[in-house]
Amino acid sequence: MQATKKVASSMKVFEEFESEVRSYIRSFPVTFVKSQGSKLWDEEGKEYIDFFAGAGALNYGHNHPAMKEKLISYIAEDGITHSLDMGTKAKADFLIRFNEMILKPRDLDYKVMFPGPTGTNTVESALKLARKVTGRDLVISFTNGFHGMTLGALSVTGNSFKRHGAGVPLHNGVSMPFDKYLGDEVDTVEYLERFLEDNGSGVSLPAAIILETVQGEGGINAADYEWIKRVEDVCRRWDILLIIDDVQVGCGRTGPFFSFEPAGIKPDIVCLSKSISGYGLPMALTLIKPEYDEWSPGEHNGTFRGHNPAFVTATEALSFWENDNLKNEIIKKGEIVGEFLTILAEKYPELKGEPRGRGLMRGMACHVDGLADKICAAAFERGLIMETSGPNSEVFKIMPPLTIDVNSLQRGFDIIEDSVKACLNK
Amino acid sequence: MQATKKVASSMKVFEEFESEVRSYIRSFPVTFVKSQGSKLWDEEGKEYIDFFAGAGALNYGHNHPAMKEKLISYIAEDGITHSLDMGTKAKADFLIRFNEMILKPRDLDYKVMFPGPTGTNTVESALKLARKVTGRDLVISFTNGFHGMTLGALSVTGNSFKRHGAGVPLHNGVSMPFDKYLGDEVDTVEYLERFLEDNGSGVSLPAAIILETVQGEGGINAADYEWIKRVEDVCRRWDILLIIDDVQVGCGRTGPFFSFEPAGIKPDIVCLSKSISGYGLPMALTLIKPEYDEWSPGEHNGTFRGHNPAFVTATEALSFWENDNLKNEIIKKGEIVGEFLTILAEKYPELKGEPRGRGLMRGMACHVDGLADKICAAAFERGLIMETSGPNSEVFKIMPPLTIDVNSLQRGFDIIEDSVKACLNK
Amino acid sequence: MQATKKVASSMKVFEEFESEVRSYIRSFPVTFVKSQGSKLWDEEGKEYIDFFAGAGALNYGHNHPAMKEKLISYIAEDGITHSLDMGTKAKADFLIRFNEMILKPRDLDYKVMFPGPTGTNTVESALKLARKVTGRDLVISFTNGFHGMTLGALSVTGNSFKRHGAGVPLHNGVSMPFDKYLGDEVDTVEYLERFLEDNGSGVSLPAAIILETVQGEGGINAADYEWIKRVEDVCRRWDILLIIDDVQVGCGRTGPFFSFEPAGIKPDIVCLSKSISGYGLPMALTLIKPEYDEWSPGEHNGTFRGHNPAFVTATEALSFWENDNLKNEIIKKGEIVGEFLTILAEKYPELKGEPRGRGLMRGMACHVDGLADKICAAAFERGLIMETSGPNSEVFKIMPPLTIDVNSLQRGFDIIEDSVKACLNK
Amino acid sequence: MQATKKVASSMKVFEEFESEVRSYIRSFPVTFVKSQGSKLWDEEGKEYIDFFAGAGALNYGHNHPAMKEKLISYIAEDGITHSLDMGTKAKADFLIRFNEMILKPRDLDYKVMFPGPTGTNTVESALKLARKVTGRDLVISFTNGFHGMTLGALSVTGNSFKRHGAGVPLHNGVSMPFDKYLGDEVDTVEYLERFLEDNGSGVSLPAAIILETVQGEGGINAADYEWIKRVEDVCRRWDILLIIDDVQVGCGRTGPFFSFEPAGIKPDIVCLSKSISGYGLPMALTLIKPEYDEWSPGEHNGTFRGHNPAFVTATEALSFWENDNLKNEIIKKGEIVGEFLTILAEKYPELKGEPRGRGLMRGMACHVDGLADKICAAAFERGLIMETSGPNSEVFKIMPPLTIDVNSLQRGFDIIEDSVKACLNK
Repeated sequence: MQATKKVASSMKVFEEFESEVRSYIRSFPVTFVKSQGSKLWDEEGKEYIDFFAGAGALNYGHNHPAMKEKLISYIAEDGITHSLDMGTKAKADFLIRFNEMILKPRDLDYKVMFPGPTGTNTVESALKLARKVTGRDLVISFTNGFHGMTLGALSVTGNSFKRHGAGVPLHNGVSMPFDKYLGDEVDTVEYLERFLEDNGSGVSLPAAIILETVQGEGGINAADYEWIKRVEDVCRRWDILLIIDDVQVGCGRTGPFFSFEPAGIKPDIVCLSKSISGYGLPMALTLIKPEYDEWSPGEHNGTFRGHNPAFVTATEALSFWENDNLKNEIIKKGEIVGEFLTILAEKYPELKGEPRGRGLMRGMACHVDGLADKICAAAFERGLIMETSGPNSEVFKIMPPLTIDVNSLQRGFDIIEDSVKACLNK
Repeated sequence: MQATKKVASSMKVFEEFESEVRSYIRSFPVTFVKSQGSKLWDEEGKEYIDFFAGAGALNYGHNHPAMKEKLISYIAEDGITHSLDMGTKAKADFLIRFNEMILKPRDLDYKVMFPGPTGTNTVESALKLARKVTGRDLVISFTNGFHGMTLGALSVTGNSFKRHGAGVPLHNGVSMPFDKYLGDEVDTVEYLERFLEDNGSGVSLPAAIILETVQGEGGINAADYEWIKRVEDVCRRWDILLIIDDVQVGCGRTGPFFSFEPAGIKPDIVCLSKSISGYGLPMALTLIKPEYDEWSPGEHNGTFRGHNPAFVTATEALSFWENDNLKNEIIKKGEIVGEFLTILAEKYPELKGEPRGRGLMRGMACHVDGLADKICAAAFERGLIMETSGPNSEVFKIMPPLTIDVNSLQRGFDIIEDSVKACLNK
Repeated sequence: MQATKKVASSMKVFEEFESEVRSYIRSFPVTFVKSQGSKLWDEEGKEYIDFFAGAGALNYGHNHPAMKEKLISYIAEDGITHSLDMGTKAKADFLIRFNEMILKPRDLDYKVMFPGPTGTNTVESALKLARKVTGRDLVISFTNGFHGMTLGALSVTGNSFKRHGAGVPLHNGVSMPFDKYLGDEVDTVEYLERFLEDNGSGVSLPAAIILETVQGEGGINAADYEWIKRVEDVCRRWDILLIIDDVQVGCGRTGPFFSFEPAGIKPDIVCLSKSISGYGLPMALTLIKPEYDEWSPGEHNGTFRGHNPAFVTATEALSFWENDNLKNEIIKKGEIVGEFLTILAEKYPELKGEPRGRGLMRGMACHVDGLADKICAAAFERGLIMETSGPNSEVFKIMPPLTIDVNSLQRGFDIIEDSVKACLNK
Repeated sequence: MQATKKVASSMKVFEEFESEVRSYIRSFPVTFVKSQGSKLWDEEGKEYIDFFAGAGALNYGHNHPAMKEKLISYIAEDGITHSLDMGTKAKADFLIRFNEMILKPRDLDYKVMFPGPTGTNTVESALKLARKVTGRDLVISFTNGFHGMTLGALSVTGNSFKRHGAGVPLHNGVSMPFDKYLGDEVDTVEYLERFLEDNGSGVSLPAAIILETVQGEGGINAADYEWIKRVEDVCRRWDILLIIDDVQVGCGRTGPFFSFEPAGIKPDIVCLSKSISGYGLPMALTLIKPEYDEWSPGEHNGTFRGHNPAFVTATEALSFWENDNLKNEIIKKGEIVGEFLTILAEKYPELKGEPRGRGLMRGMACHVDGLADKICAAAFERGLIMETSGPNSEVFKIMPPLTIDVNSLQRGFDIIEDSVKACLNK
C-alpha cells in the first residue's frame, strides 16, 4: 500500500518533468536504484532479473567488479575525464590493448576512429566516409535494419514510425530485402544483384551496403553466414564498401567478438558502440580499413569523442577476450535459451511462437496480435526485465548479460513460462 | 632528450592505430595523464593551463572535487550506470534539482528530454520536433552557426569543410546572415523578415530558427541581446519555433545559466550538452515548452540517454547556481579577459587584432593569415592550451574554466603575450 | 559520289552548330525533308519506311491528310495559335470531342488538365497532384520505367545514364520490380505488397504508383493485364493513387485507346502526350479523377499549355476512335509483327532473339552484345528507320505508324531479315 | 442578353471538362476564336487589344503574315513535322540562319541545344549541364525569380505558392536577393559575394547562378546592367557558370535580341523559349559555350525536340533582326509606355503607383491591396487583355507585341486610364 503510493509518487517526477518521448519507463514503471551483474533493484528493494542488458550495452553485466575498480581508481587519481581527441594515456592504453586483444589475433588492421560516443554517431561517420571514398551518394540497407536516429543513420533505418519522426523525407538510401525476407525460397542476394547489374533498375551503384548480421530492433532476424558472405562478394564484385553495423550484435552478443567472424568476411568499415566500454558508459568506435582512411583531420568530430572513463573500462573489458572462454559460454548459454524457446513454442501452441536468433541474441516471435507485449508486462510484474522488438512488437527478446549464470537464466525462464500461462489464461 | 623520445613514441600509438580524422592531437602532440581545475599534466609531468575547457565541456574545471566525490560514491555503491530511458533515482534527483535550481527561478516550465548524450543529438531531436509540431520542413540557421556533425545538425551548420564531409547535398536548411554579418549598418533581422514576408523570396515559412547567442566555432561572434530579442519577435509574428542552441554557450559560459537570459526571451526549444554534466561526462538535454511536447513515446531514442553517472555529477554541478556568485564572477573575469585583449590589440598593432566575445567566451580575431594558429602553437609550447576558431581559424579563443582563479588567468595572459611577441619576432 | 558529299556537308551544319547532346541523328545521319504516312524522304530523295513513328508520337502516320487539311485551314483563318490556358474555340471543341469519343464510351469522367505540351510535363503534374492529394512524398515506380527528363519525372525513371545526368541525387522515388523482372516464378506484386505492409521495410506508404503497361524505352516489357489489375488492387487496399503513364503506349499503340483498358482498371491519373495531337505536334494531357482534382488555379502552369493547332489536329485524330476499326487493325497487324519476330528468332538462332511486346509495340531482344544496334544500322542503310531500346540497347523495336499498310510492313520485314543476315554474315 | 447566355454556356465546357488548375480563363472568361497582330476576337466578335502577348510568347504579334505563309506552305508540302533530334532541312535552315542573324553579329559561338519545346525544359537542361560541368550541386537563383514548373526549375523559382505545389521539399537551390531587393542602398552583389567568400556562410560554391535580367512573373523588376555585369564578374572570380534565363525577356522584349547585351556580358548558358518560334509555337533552345558542351549523346532528351513547323516560323522570325529597326522601335515604344505610366502615377496618387520595367516589359506596381487585379478586370471588360504579376499580384503588366502600332498602344492606354478611374471611383 505504502509502496504503491511511493512508486506512484516517484513516477510523478518523470510525468511532471520529463518529455512525452520517454518510452521504456512506460513498460517498466519503477525507479531503479541499484544493479549488479544480471540484477537490478528498484527503490522498493524489489529485485529484477535482466534479460534486456541495456539493449545490448551491458554485455558484461551491470557494474562489473574489475572494471568498477579500475574506473574508481582512475577517477580518484584525477585521470583525464574529457579530452576531445587529444592524446591521453587512457586512450593510448585502449588502442594498444584493442589492437593486441581483438585486431591482431583476427588478422585485422583497421584504423580506429572515435566518432562521438553513440551508435548513431559511428553509423553517421561510416556513411560519410563511404560516400567520400567512393564519390557516390546512395547507400543500400536492408528491410528491418536499425542504424540510429540522427538524420543520416535514420535514412538507412527501416522502421516507418522512426523514419516518419524525421519530419522530412529521407534520402540517399535504398532498402533491399534482408535474408529470408521473402520466404526461404527467394534468394535475396540474387535480387539485390539483379538491381545492381541492370542499368535500368532505378538503383544506381551505391557507396556502401550496411547491415546487421542479426537484426535486433527489427525482430531478431539472423542472416545466414553464407548470405552475409555472398553480400560481401557482391560488394567486392561491384566495388561497394561493406559496412557491418555491430553496434548491438558485436562485442560477443552472438559468440565471437565480431558477429561476422564465422561468415569469413572482412568488412571495409565496422561500427561498434553499446558494449564496447563494457560498463554501459557512452563510447563508440568506427573501424576502417587503412586504405579507406581518407578522412581529413577534423572532418567528422564531436565533443565527447574522448570520454576517458569509458576507455578505462573498455580496456579492462577486453580481458574477456584473452581466450575463448566467454565465446564458448555464450554459445552454450545461447543453445540453452534456444532450447527453452523451442520447447515453450511446442508446449504452448496458442503462442504461435517462432524461436529466433543466435548466441545470446534470441527471441520468440508470437504471431498473435499484442501477445508479446502482454508477456513482457506480465514478466515485469514477476521480476523480469524483457522487451519486445520487431515492426509490430511481435517478438519478446531474451538478451541477458553474456555473463549471466545458468541459475538466473533458469529463473528467468520460469518467469517467462508463468507469464505465458497467465497471458494465455492457463 | 629522453623526454622527446618518449613523447614521440607515445605519439606513435595514435599514428599507428588511430584514424587520420584525429585533429586536436595534431595541435597538442602530447599524451595527457592528469587534470585538476584549470590545469592538465602530460606524461612528462609538464603542466598546462587550460584556456580551452574541453571546447566548453569543462566549465567547472577538470575533476571538480565535490562532483568527483559524489561520482565515486555512486559508482562504489553500484548505482545504476546505464538505464536507457527507464526511471532511476539519479535521473529523478536530477530532474527535481534542475527544476528547482534552474527552471523555476527563471519562470520556465520546460519539459526535459534526454536525447542521447551529445550536442548533435539534442540538435537533431530539436529539429525533428520543430518539424513535427509545425508540419514544415525548412529550418533557418545563421552564417557561421555550428550545430553538430550528424546529417540533420550538419544541414544547419555553416562551415563548408564540415558540410562537404557529408558526401551528399544537405537539405531543408537556409542560411541567413547573423548579427553584424554585413557590417554594423545592415540590419540582418530586417533582411530575414523581408524573405519571410515576401511570397516570392524563395524561402518558405520555416519550422524553426536555430541560433547560438555567441557563435563559438564560427569565430566568437556575439549577437546583441536586442538582435536576439528581435529574432524572437520575428518567430512570434510568423509562428516559427525558436531553438536556442546553448550547447557551448549555455551553463554559464557568458554569465547567466542560459546565455539568452539577458535578452529577455523564452525559446521554444533549448539545446544543452557539453557542460551540463559538470564533469565532462557525455550528457545532453532538450528543453521543450510543454505545449510543443508532441512526441510519441520512443519517436526519438538512443542507447545512452540514461547515462546515470553524468546525472549524478550534473545534479551536484547545479549547486553552482544556488546564488549569483558564479555568474558575477564570470562577468568580472570576462571583463578582465576583455581588457587584456583590448590592450594586447593596441600594444601589438601588427596583430590586426579584434577582440570579440562575451563573458568567458572570448577571443581575438587576428586579421593576418595563419597568425592565430601560430600564436596557439607558441602558447602550447609555453604551457597553455588554447585553440582557434572561425571559418579561417583566424581567432584565438580564450575559454578557460569558469572557475579559474585570477592568478592562472594572469599566467595564461603572460604566455599569450610572450607567444604573440615570438610570432611577431619582437 | 556527289550525294555523299552533299550528305556530309549537310551533316556539318549539325556538327558545327548543334550541341553534342544530339543523338538520333548519329544513328540516322541524313537530312530528312519530307514525310507522308509511313514514309520519309531525305534530301537525296531516298525513301525510308518508318518503323519508329517518332518514338510513338506519330501513331497515325506522318502528315495525315484529314488533319493536315484542318490544320492548314485553321492557320489560314487566323485561328488562335497560342493561348496559355485561356478559353479558345479549338480547345472547347477538343474537350467536347474527347469527352464524346473517348471518355464517355469508356464510362470515364476524368477532368482534363493541359500541363504543358510534353510527356515529362504531364508526369510532373501527375506527381505533384498525387503528393498534394495524399500529403505523402514517396512515389513508387518500376524497374526500367521511363517517365521523362525533368527532375521530378527523372526521379521515377529507371535508366541510370539518364538519372546520372541530373547531376544531383534523385529523391522521393522507390523502384520496385516490374512484372516478370525476377523471372516468371517470382510474383512481383506480392513483393511490392510485402514492403507496404511491413512497418519496418524502409518503404513508407507512397502517394502514388506510376507505371507504363508496356515499357517502351525500358526494352518492350509488357506487363500482364492481370498483374496490372493486381497493382490497382494494391493501390485500392492501401489508398495509393494509381498513375498510368500512357504517353507512349496510349492512343492505340497496343490496340485500345488507353493501353490499360483490357486490364479492367480505372487509374486515378492518366498521362497522355506523344500521339494525342495526332500530327506530331507538341501536346499533353493529364486526366484526373474528379475527386482528386484538388488543384488551386495556376498551381501548375506553363507557356505552351494552349497550343491550339495541336488541339485542331487532336480533335480530328479522334475520328479514328468512332468505331473499333483501328483497334482491330492494330491487333491484327500486331499479330503479324509478332509472327514475323517469332519466325525470325527461330530461323536465326544466332540472334538469341526473344520476341516481345503487344499490339504495334513490339521488338526483339537480341541477347548478343551490340547486335541490335548493328541490325538497326544495317536496316537504316537499306531504307528502314528502326531504333533500339532496353537498358543495354539490346532490343530492336518495331513501332510503325498504326496506320501502316501491310505491304509496307512486309517491306520492312524484308529489310530486317536482310539486315539480320548481313549482321550474322549469312 | 443572348450574348451573355452564349458566353456562359461556352464557359460551361471548360467548367465541366477541364481541371480546376485552369487560371487565365478565370480572368478572361470568354472563348477566343481569332487573332491577328495585336488583337484578338472572342466568339461574340468582340475585339480585344493585347497587352499580354502570350506572356511573352507572341513578341511579333499573333499570326504574323510572313511566318504564316511559310508555315502553311511547309505543311502543305508535307515537310517533316516531328523529328525528335534527327536531321531535317527545317532544322538545318534554322541553325544556319540563327548563327548568321544572331550569334555571329554578336560575336557569340554558342552551341545550340534543342531541349524540348518549353521554357522549363531549357532551364532543366541548363541546370543539369552546369552541375555536370562543375561537379557541384548547388544553384543560386534570386528572389522573385521564375524559371519553370518542373521539379528542377521549380527549385530555383521564388514563388512560394508554386514551390509549395511541388508537394516535396525543393533542394539544391539557394535564393539570394535580386538587385535593389533590400532597397537602393544595399549592394546585393556584395552580399552574394560575402556568402561565397566566407567558408562558414552555409552556402557552398555553386555550379551556377541563374537569373532573368528583368523579372517578369516576379513583378517587373529590372536589374541594372551594371549589377548584371557585376554578377558575371562574381561568376568569373569563383568559376561559377552564369545562366541567363532569357525565356521571357529575350527575343527583343527589352530592345536587343538578348536582354543582356547592353550589360556587356557573355553568359555561359542562355535559355530561350516563348517567342523564339515567332509564332507562338512550342520551341526552346539552350545555348551553350562550346567549352561547356560536355553532354553525352542523349543525356537529356524529349519527344518534341524536333518540332519543325516551329523551326520554319522561327527561321522567318529572325528576319526581324537583320537590322536595328525593331530594336529601336521597341526602345521608343517602351519609352512611350514608360511616360504613360509615370504620368498615370502622378495623376492618380491613390494608385500608389510605381512604374517599373524596361523596353516593352513594363508595368505599374500599385501599392494598394488587390487594386492591380481590379484594374485588369476593368480593362478586360473594356476590351484590353492585361495581367498582373508580382508575389502579391500587385503589378499590372504592359507587355504588348513588340510590333504593336502606336495607335493601338494609345487605345490601350485610354482603356487603362478609364479602368483606373472606374476602380478609384472617379
